[in-house]
Parts: sequence; structure tokens; C-alpha cells
Amino acid sequence: MNIITLSTDFGARDWFVGTMKGVILSINPQAIIVDITHEIAPGDVRAGAFVLRAACRFFPAQTIHVAVVDPGVGSRRPAIAVQTDRYTFIGPDNGVLSWALAQEKVRTIRRLENQKCFLHPVSRTFHGRDVFAPVAAHLSKGFPFQKLGRAVRDFARLPWPEPRRMGKALCGQIVYVDRFGNAITNIPEELARPGLRRRWKVMLGRKQLCRVEPFYQAVPPGKPVAVFGSSGLLEIAINGGNAAKQLALAVADPVSLQAG
Amino acid sequence: MNIITLSTDFGARDWFVGTMKGVILSINPQAIIVDITHEIAPGDVRAGAFVLRAACRFFPAQTIHVAVVDPGVGSRRPAIAVQTDRYTFIGPDNGVLSWALAQEKVRTIRRLENQKCFLHPVSRTFHGRDVFAPVAAHLSKGFPFQKLGRAVRDFARLPWPEPRRMGKALCGQIVYVDRFGNAITNIPEELARPGLRRRWKVMLGRKQLCRVEPFYQAVPPGKPVAVFGSSGLLEIAINGGNAAKQLALAVADPVSLQAG
Amino acid sequence: MNIITLSTDFGARDWFVGTMKGVILSINPQAIIVDITHEIAPGDVRAGAFVLRAACRFFPAQTIHVAVVDPGVGSRRPAIAVQTDRYTFIGPDNGVLSWALAQEKVRTIRRLENQKCFLHPVSRTFHGRDVFAPVAAHLSKGFPFQKLGRAVRDFARLPWPEPRRMGKALCGQIVYVDRFGNAITNIPEELARPGLRRRWKVMLGRKQLCRVEPFYQAVPPGKPVAVFGSSGLLEIAINGGNAAKQLALAVADPVSLQAG
Repeated sequence: MNIITLSTDFGARDWFVGTMKGVILSINPQAIIVDITHEIAPGDVRAGAFVLRAACRFFPAQTIHVAVVDPGVGSRRPAIAVQTDRYTFIGPDNGVLSWALAQEKVRTIRRLENQKCFLHPVSRTFHGRDVFAPVAAHLSKGFPFQKLGRAVRDFARLPWPEPRRMGKALCGQIVYVDRFGNAITNIPEELARPGLRRRWKVMLGRKQLCRVEPFYQAVPPGKPVAVFGSSGLLEIAINGGNAAKQLALAVADPVSLQAG
Repeated sequence: MNIITLSTDFGARDWFVGTMKGVILSINPQAIIVDITHEIAPGDVRAGAFVLRAACRFFPAQTIHVAVVDPGVGSRRPAIAVQTDRYTFIGPDNGVLSWALAQEKVRTIRRLENQKCFLHPVSRTFHGRDVFAPVAAHLSKGFPFQKLGRAVRDFARLPWPEPRRMGKALCGQIVYVDRFGNAITNIPEELARPGLRRRWKVMLGRKQLCRVEPFYQAVPPGKPVAVFGSSGLLEIAINGGNAAKQLALAVADPVSLQAG
Repeated sequence: MNIITLSTDFGARDWFVGTMKGVILSINPQAIIVDITHEIAPGDVRAGAFVLRAACRFFPAQTIHVAVVDPGVGSRRPAIAVQTDRYTFIGPDNGVLSWALAQEKVRTIRRLENQKCFLHPVSRTFHGRDVFAPVAAHLSKGFPFQKLGRAVRDFARLPWPEPRRMGKALCGQIVYVDRFGNAITNIPEELARPGLRRRWKVMLGRKQLCRVEPFYQAVPPGKPVAVFGSSGLLEIAINGGNAAKQLALAVADPVSLQAG
């Protein structure tokens, strides 16, 4: 399979991403390279993990997903490739792959150690170009996975903040803020029994904010609204506005659903 | 034809656009996906309409143009596909397609209703992923247009502010501000008789700003200049500067050309 | 070869880049178009030249590199195409190609004059669409290089600020600031004898800032660090921070290495 996706914090304003694409196409001119995003905040491994988790499963089987949010580049942090039943994931072993991997059936994990797959000389500051891009390109051309490096048992995991039941309430927190200012929480639709949607009051700390609605425009313009969004998680929005800015919401802020 | 263009307000910093591409490639791995822009201001249907109008006609015949600026997603606003003599346009029926369609010969319009073309379950908040991307991919593979849903007679139109003649003046307004801060008006070159370019004084309200020149550097650095730009419309710029910021220009501000 | 790279200051928020791609695909539907960046600051020819220099050599032989940072568009500044032993470069002859060309063996230079390769009517403000994109597309399809226009002997060069030895010091300056806030200097690794890395003190003007380390995380979070980065040049960073902002660094600021 020739599809390689890229999720990084390299930004669009320099030459980093273009260079990775040049490296990939030099090895496999048939590769189809798809940007998921390059605008993850510099070094924000959690945001990278969330983005990869949200996007990866919409790609065809055999897609190679490369995620590079790598503040430890050049230090001794390992780099890995992970085969699941559907995909291959490649990145630093710092947790950036872990939320996506939690959705998949992991088959094998290998360290990236085989120098034959790297671009030489390998820099100490840009493994996106020198390690991750060429490994992805070689794998997309059929390079044998087991030759990448030694097999390892596990990968680094970022803790996923599980929502908790407390009496009749469901207590969670904000895990991501998107470009619209929508604040996405860790409360999944299954847990909240969406059939009873109108029962739920959405609380920011102790303050009631709004109810859960089926879509953004179910409330008047400028009003807050909570919906179960496209990732299956509760999100807080303002119809036509920016909830994160207007309500001063940030990752890790507590959000709860209360019955009644 | 395999070319699918995307014009959205989804931004580059999250996973929305990457996810749409994954959906398209899952259905048609041969699709050639071209981003027009994803940086339309959230919910700015007029800006989306202007961008699509400016870009669409430079693509090969048979291109499928998808435009998603869709503040009403999840509500009852219909979604449509439109065949013209050269292209197929897909988007919400909220006017975002209308300025592009005004340039084309419209052949048929269908509602997007055939569930077979959607990604299931269809979310209430992300039709870019669940409706527009898969419909485009299916059409690019040869899915019959008439099976998308019922035929309809017309599509929603955004009013285009026509410039008016008032005595010896041509009165218009700003319709778009681009990344350079150039303020593009609704005054087309044909109307202003460009052969007589030097006759025209460019007025902001009652204040004379500059003359019409053939290109930006026809005036000294830092000076305002008006040119008939690459879309055939009068635009106000500052040579080497940002006219919108420096002159405090915004969409809907009046601009006129006066003889003399 | 079908790969065409684009480096411009057109930004991602309007239709300019998408339009160039439409023009290219209309001429050569097989073209593989790769964005290096479109976020060069408007009119910043030096930044464009630096980006192209940093990225171009990672692409396969025969790649066509198009760079459009063109404040003089529409004036009499010439446009050129340059064949080197590995690549073809296309852009305005204002220096934007020159730092990349300094790395390559230049074979032939032609003016872009053959109207058959242009999109008509040629606007005075958007040669990216009307001149550079179609010329690249025609060349990628095999249009003969020597038919582009008359041969010329040389191209416009931006001066590259060479670092100087002064006693035991190496004196240079900042030449680019990247999205991470890393300030890249003109001091190459070869010159500084990296084997003796720990000998060097990094000076901002007369103030000692830090030492040269092998990678960013060799210092504690929040501390300044200098490394020889992925372009082979000394760069000043803050581990986990933004050096340009926190240390108020800008292009042309003096940086030196002192022994001891």
C-alpha cells in the first residue's frame, strides 16, 4: 500500500514537511502522501496523540501513519514502528502513537534501528527527515517489517483520562480544543446514553452551562451548546462563536454531565 | 475524472481535512485531491463562495469541486450536487456554491439523499467527512449522478453586490480581503473601460485614494495603488504593504471610480 | 519526471495556490505537486531563498522546483528557468533561486519568454498562475528547455553573508528564524570543527549565551542551547521554548563562536 499520512508539529511555514516529502518520493515515487496536520503546537505530544487517534481509522487498510511530535529528538528516546491488524504506525516512542494504538489490535512492535532505512548522515535534530520519512517510504515499498530492528513488547502510553461516574453524574474533562474553539471532552456518547440526551445538564465545575443538543444550531446564535461530536465525544461549542475563547476553556478543565 | 478539490473552513490545525482525504481514498484510491483552501474564516459562507468562484475555472474539465462552509450542519439545510457543462460542484445548499455556479452553465441539480453514498453512522456535526467527501469519491468512480437523490430546480444564491453607475462614477464595494491585505472589489475590468485606465480616480467614500495602475510596483513602496487584479476585479493594495490593515479596509466598505 | 515543488508567499488562506495546481493539472494531469511552503512572509525574497536552499536537494533528480516570491510581479523584472545537473528551477530572477543554485552545478539559464507556455491572458499581478505554473507543467511534460526563451549568462544573486574568522572567534549572523523560534545562523559545522564542539562559547554580541551541544534536550527545559541543526548550520534554540521570542532574536543579529 502506498498511502503514507503525516501528523507533525513542524508547521507549514518552513521547509520541514516539504523535505520529508522529498525524502519519501526519492525512495518511493509511487507514494501517496496525505497531510493530517502539521500545526500541532510545538512539542504537544498529547495533541498529536489526539489528532492521530481521531483521523487514523478513516484511512484504507495498509495505510502507514507517521506521527512526529518529538521534543526528545536526538536524545536516547527510542523510535518505533507498530503493526496493527489494519495499519502501520511510525513515530518516536513517547506516547504520540498510543491513543491511536488503543483503538487497534497491535500485532508487532519494532525499534527503528536498521541504518539501511535511514537517510545519512542522520542529524540529531530532524528525525522526521532522516528516520521516520525514509522508514515509512521503505516499508511502503515492501521492506520487511521484521528487519527494522529488534522486536519490543510494549510502547510508551500517555494516560487517557477516563471519565468517572459519581452518583448520578458523569465527570470528565476537556482533552482537546479545535480550531473552531470547540472544547472536546473525554465523555463518550455510549456512556451518557444518548437516547436520554435531554436529561443531561452540562456543568463547568459547579456552574450549569447548557444542555446536550443534537447539533450546533439547535440553540440561538451566540449561545453555548453541547453535542456529541464527530469523534463520539461530548464537546462544548457556541453556535457561531468560539467556546474556548468566550468561556475561557482549556485542556484539563473539568466538565460533567448531571441528570435532571 | 479523478480530480477532487476541497475548499473548507476546517483549518489545517486539526484532523478534519486529513480525515476527509482518508474517506475519499478509502472509496477511490485513484483520486487526486487538491486543496484550494481550508482557511476560510469559520462559517464565512461569502468568503468560501468567493474563493471557489476565483479558483474553480482553472481546473480541468470533469473536476469535482467540494466546498464545505457549513454553519448549519446537522440542521435541515439541504446538501446538493450540481452538474455544469464542465464540472461537478458539491456542498451544502447555503449559497457557498452560488458565485461559482453563476460563471458556469448549470445542467442538473440533485439533493444528496442516497444513503449508499454516505459514511455511516452519519454524524450531526461533520458532513464534510460523512456526506460530502464520500459523495465526491463515489462520483469520481463513476457513481451515476441521477442516483444521488431527487432532482431540484434551483440552488440557494448569495446576493452578489452589483456595482452601479452613478453619473460619471462607478460605485462598488469591497468583497474580499486576501492574505496580502489587498482589498478586492466588485468592480470588473470590463465595466471600467481599462483602456482609459489613467482617467480613473479611486475613491474610498468621498476621499480620493489613488489612481488605477497596471501593476503594484507602478507606485513607490508604501504608497496605495489600485489594479485590476488576477480575478479581473479592481483591487486596492499598498506596494510592499498591507492595504486592509494600513487603510482599515473591510468587506462591504464602499469604493468608487470617478472620471477625471 | 513529474514532480513539481512549489515555494511561495501566497499563503494557504486564499485561492492562489489551489489555482496554480489547477493550471498545472490542466496541462499535465500526471504531475505530482509537492508544497514546500506557501507561508513565506509576503515579499520576503531572502526567506524564500533560504527555504528553497534547505529543501531542494532532498528531492529526486529531475524534480522541477518553482519558487515565487515576487514583489516585482508585472514590472520588467525577468523570469527565468535554470537547469542544473539534477534539477530545474523556475522563478522570478530576483535572487529567490540563488542560494539553492549556489549548491548545484548550473548548466543553462533561459528567460521565460515563449508565450506558448503561458496561460492567457497573462495578468500583471499573478505570474504564479499565468507564467510559472504553466511553464513548470509544460517542462514536466517534455517541452524542450531551449524553447523557453533566449539563453542568458547569469542570474540575480542575493548576497550570502559569509561568516568571518576574527582571531580565535567565528563571527556570523542569524539568517532565518523557524516556526519553533530557532534562530539559524550562517555558521556551518565544517568551519567550527565540530569535533571540538565543547570548546565553543556561543556569544550574542558580547554576551555569552551557552555552549554548543549535540541536541536540544542536552540542556534543562527553558535553557538556551546551540546545536548544529539539520541544515548543517549553527542554530540557537531554547529547550522546549521559543528562542527568537524569549531572547528577542531577529535576522541579521550578530552571533559568534569563541574558543575557550
